[in-house]
Amino acid sequence: MAEGGEDIQALIAALARLPGLGPRSARRVVLSLIGRKPGQMAQLATLMSRVAETARACTRCGNISEAEICAICTDPARQTGELCVVEHVADLWALERGRAFRGRYHVLGGTLSALDDISPEDLGIPRLLARIGPEQVTEIILALNATVEGQTTAHYIADALPDGLTVTGLAQGVPIGGELDYLDDGTITAALRARRRF
Amino acid sequence: MAEGGEDIQALIAALARLPGLGPRSARRVVLSLIGRKPGQMAQLATLMSRVAETARACTRCGNISEAEICAICTDPARQTGELCVVEHVADLWALERGRAFRGRYHVLGGTLSALDDISPEDLGIPRLLARIGPEQVTEIILALNATVEGQTTAHYIADALPDGLTVTGLAQGVPIGGELDYLDDGTITAALRARRRF
Repeated sequence: MAEGGEDIQALIAALARLPGLGPRSARRVVLSLIGRKPGQMAQLATLMSRVAETARACTRCGNISEAEICAICTDPARQTGELCVVEHVADLWALERGRAFRGRYHVLGGTLSALDDISPEDLGIPRLLARIGPEQVTEIILALNATVEGQTTAHYIADALPDGLTVTGLAQGVPIGGELDYLDDGTITAALRARRRF
Repeated sequence: MAEGGEDIQALIAALARLPGLGPRSARRVVLSLIGRKPGQMAQLATLMSRVAETARACTRCGNISEAEICAICTDPARQTGELCVVEHVADLWALERGRAFRGRYHVLGGTLSALDDISPEDLGIPRLLARIGPEQVTEIILALNATVEGQTTAHYIADALPDGLTVTGLAQGVPIGGELDYLDDGTITAALRARRRF
């Protein structure tokens, strides 16, 4: 009763369950939305219901898209023979923001895990292998997270790939702007081992 | 193109403008919503559009409500003659969570400010004064923030109130669970001056 009516309370509760938000920030968001120019909140609601209707996983690569095949997969300029394997859609988006990669992607949706009962089939690895021939893939870039789970999955995929393919992984080292004093020992060791000539 | 389609990008941009969210957390929220059970996002959108339609300021106290007069103002159990003046709806909600106050509220919507050209009329202070007679108010609790702006506004209201009313403010002191070492000098001084017998 205190925090507006039933709908307002339900909206706050729904927003509080989103990642990065809690009850306090959900309240702030709702109050700010109600306090804005009329129409702004309705516009956000419309946008959200439209995305809820149209957003789906690209049936080829797993990217989130509004079409059955995403814009990256259908872009003829990106038929480079390079296929970049990532864990999550967020990783794909992060790579795209860098604008360095001009090939196509394959989103696994997670990492292998015996504990959580996640098998290669759950990650679409057979689907990845099936893409290599038809799409004339020559290089697989395993851009999985530098975690134990990510690297285990990368090794599994590398073993499952047919011979004759180039298989690469992201370089490990000091991040741009990184200060040695704040880096963990593993990163410094990796950067030192992979040192290069100036 | 990279981050889903146009609608998805527009939704991320709209969410990124909300308080406490930025582009990164907006992306996380959208990906999490898309990844959930179908229907959850549509449900959130419906809730939001319903609140956008119905939420308004209570014409009597300024609380956010789905009716013209809010549930607190229409609750007959709260006719105590006590009227609590707060800056924002969020402050009212915070007081309600404490469940200590059983009177009614008056939301100013901000503080007096010559620089920002916010006058007593903008804050509905004449509307507050007009409530005193009809609602048989006997005590005004000035629960404004303990900031310079809040206290200036509180003093202005205290001066404008008719004689014969009890005018009070929130006690200042050490917050529950507070450690002296982490408190500012002003709070410690205030707590010491207002010390009480055990």
